[in-house]
Amino acid sequence: YITKLDMELAAIEKGGYDHFMLKEIFEQPQTIYDCLRGRLDAEKGTITMSGIQKYAEQIMNANRIIMVACGTSWHAGLVAEYIFEELCRINVEVEYASEFRYRNPVINKGDVIIAISQSGETADTLVAIENAKKQGAIILGVVNVVGSSISRVSDGGAYTHAGPEIGVASTKAFTAQLAVLTMIALKIGYEKGTLDKDRYMRLLDELNSVPDKVKVVLEQQERIKALAEKYKDASDALFLGRGYNFPVALEGALKLKEISYIHAEGYPAAEMKHGPIALVDENLPVVFVATKDSYHEKVISNMQEIKARKGKVIAVITEGDEHSTSLADDVIEVPEADEIVAPMLSVIPLQLLSYYVGVAKGYDVDKPRNLAKSVTVE
Amino acid sequence: YITKLDMELAAIEKGGYDHFMLKEIFEQPQTIYDCLRGRLDAEKGTITMSGIQKYAEQIMNANRIIMVACGTSWHAGLVAEYIFEELCRINVEVEYASEFRYRNPVINKGDVIIAISQSGETADTLVAIENAKKQGAIILGVVNVVGSSISRVSDGGAYTHAGPEIGVASTKAFTAQLAVLTMIALKIGYEKGTLDKDRYMRLLDELNSVPDKVKVVLEQQERIKALAEKYKDASDALFLGRGYNFPVALEGALKLKEISYIHAEGYPAAEMKHGPIALVDENLPVVFVATKDSYHEKVISNMQEIKARKGKVIAVITEGDEHSTSLADDVIEVPEADEIVAPMLSVIPLQLLSYYVGVAKGYDVDKPRNLAKSVTVE
Repeated sequence: YITKLDMELAAIEKGGYDHFMLKEIFEQPQTIYDCLRGRLDAEKGTITMSGIQKYAEQIMNANRIIMVACGTSWHAGLVAEYIFEELCRINVEVEYASEFRYRNPVINKGDVIIAISQSGETADTLVAIENAKKQGAIILGVVNVVGSSISRVSDGGAYTHAGPEIGVASTKAFTAQLAVLTMIALKIGYEKGTLDKDRYMRLLDELNSVPDKVKVVLEQQERIKALAEKYKDASDALFLGRGYNFPVALEGALKLKEISYIHAEGYPAAEMKHGPIALVDENLPVVFVATKDSYHEKVISNMQEIKARKGKVIAVITEGDEHSTSLADDVIEVPEADEIVAPMLSVIPLQLLSYYVGVAKGYDVDKPRNLAKSVTVE
Repeated sequence: YITKLDMELAAIEKGGYDHFMLKEIFEQPQTIYDCLRGRLDAEKGTITMSGIQKYAEQIMNANRIIMVACGTSWHAGLVAEYIFEELCRINVEVEYASEFRYRNPVINKGDVIIAISQSGETADTLVAIENAKKQGAIILGVVNVVGSSISRVSDGGAYTHAGPEIGVASTKAFTAQLAVLTMIALKIGYEKGTLDKDRYMRLLDELNSVPDKVKVVLEQQERIKALAEKYKDASDALFLGRGYNFPVALEGALKLKEISYIHAEGYPAAEMKHGPIALVDENLPVVFVATKDSYHEKVISNMQEIKARKGKVIAVITEGDEHSTSLADDVIEVPEADEIVAPMLSVIPLQLLSYYVGVAKGYDVDKPRNLAKSVTVE
């Protein structure tokens, strides 16, 4: 009887979805909205984040910002590197927590460290910031679980408010991390004066419209499911992107690894010519994250190189981009958006793709083999 | 007749080796020696590098050093990051040239950029440093080909003196890059006072003894050939390491990709728990770069986790390390060495492994498919 009841509860919690992962992917319009709500006011042009405001002066004057994280959160840090450097003109470094904690890094008083973690309990990240704090760094946490260890060690920061994430592969926590990090960059860039009022106001609008645009992406569920069926028997895959979409390529590859056990690897697109392109033949699916941004023309030329070597190209593109459509074997469209917020849209089809491939292969997508939800030991 | 003559010339140039790649791997005791010769005097305790000496003051006072490179050279930059931060206590960032050049990076006057390139003609690296130079950065080149474009754009730097590299997969250029970068770090660290005399003198000796130790590693040729036969049919592989050996893991994976078209991927060992470990089953070879250093105990624990999931462990270890030997399915031993110079030894078996796998599979290892020796277009 007990077992039966548990199953029913789990089913109720899944809210009609087959898996927590799918439920959490579909929650993203709401979780991103929740994350922005009460903070971003696009009309007034304000971003209210008390845990950041307190350190705004120090962040603006920081010699550098170090993002410390693991796994999916590390990818969020990489996206944030591009955003912070562009909008705030502050050097950003992104560190694997496990490497950072053991390598006696150079930390100076006043360095700002942003620790990113869904659970707030990631062991390597926690110890890394404890060490850095002793050396005088200011620690800001971008964490989902309220009251978690990392949030307690942090001087300030902001919660991601994505709600409990049950699926082992992180989805809604990632887009919430991006939403929070983007808000911090917008706030700091505008106060510092490196982001002018026009662009600031435009980006607030862009950020505000992300939840609705995510909904539009999710409507392509059936189309992505069909693509998953088409490519599910691939043994390997490459994921390529440039600029803001380079970390999205890494994240897409990680999702596919985690859920479908397909060996997918992400790369900055131009690096493929320095080795990985040797893997390309007619059996290799190559996923391009190729939405319209300042890197677009270059990505297109990388796509052509893959086609010339007979690779199968699947491209995540901006609605109506006919040139990319003509080059790729398959495309998934996402609504047009400023390149600063585009990763929150372009990652969604990759989450769905990995989910449907995992399901098509008959795997337990909520509990992939060998993985734990939070890595609380090193 | 012309063809015949060409082939004979090529055979002569290969000096009795079947391929340029093998010849170049075996040249490394000599090329590393040539690289140190006339520069490092272990008895007098001096390192003479005029193209560095001129900028020594600026490097010591630099707010940060940025390594800019692609492919294998990028891996050399990653190793150098660890060495410079440890010995010189200067922040180091390592950038993919293709990303760096397009993303409007924050560059301040006095930032030191080290451009690493075998050919000195890598298009993305060249443009990246041209842009940075205009913004007031000091450019140092670590280049193999004398008089190449990157060496001409650079303010200073040092040649790697590895001789012409013909095999498309870079081998001897990589270890020469490490030798040069290590000498620069030793020189700067000692002059700056962050490296004390005792350790400095010891490291000069360590560096001096690398060519002889490389010879010892190369003596295991037959054993590595046998391992290549054993694992050649693997479709995928993981390469894991921590600290100084983390970039060596990336480089080992890249070599295997390039030469054998096996999808090998490198990771910092602790990151595997954040996703990649889902790939591990009894069919997956996992190569650990696990020589004795300050990260060793942690690497061992990662090795145990892979064994617990039935992965096949091949480990590059320090001579006589019986504990690692008992854990791994196969080991390759390298002579004991300080962790600062260890990457120049631990990478050698991985070069040989990829070479012999490529040969065993019948591929043209000197000209792997889809690849060019130097990427002179973007």
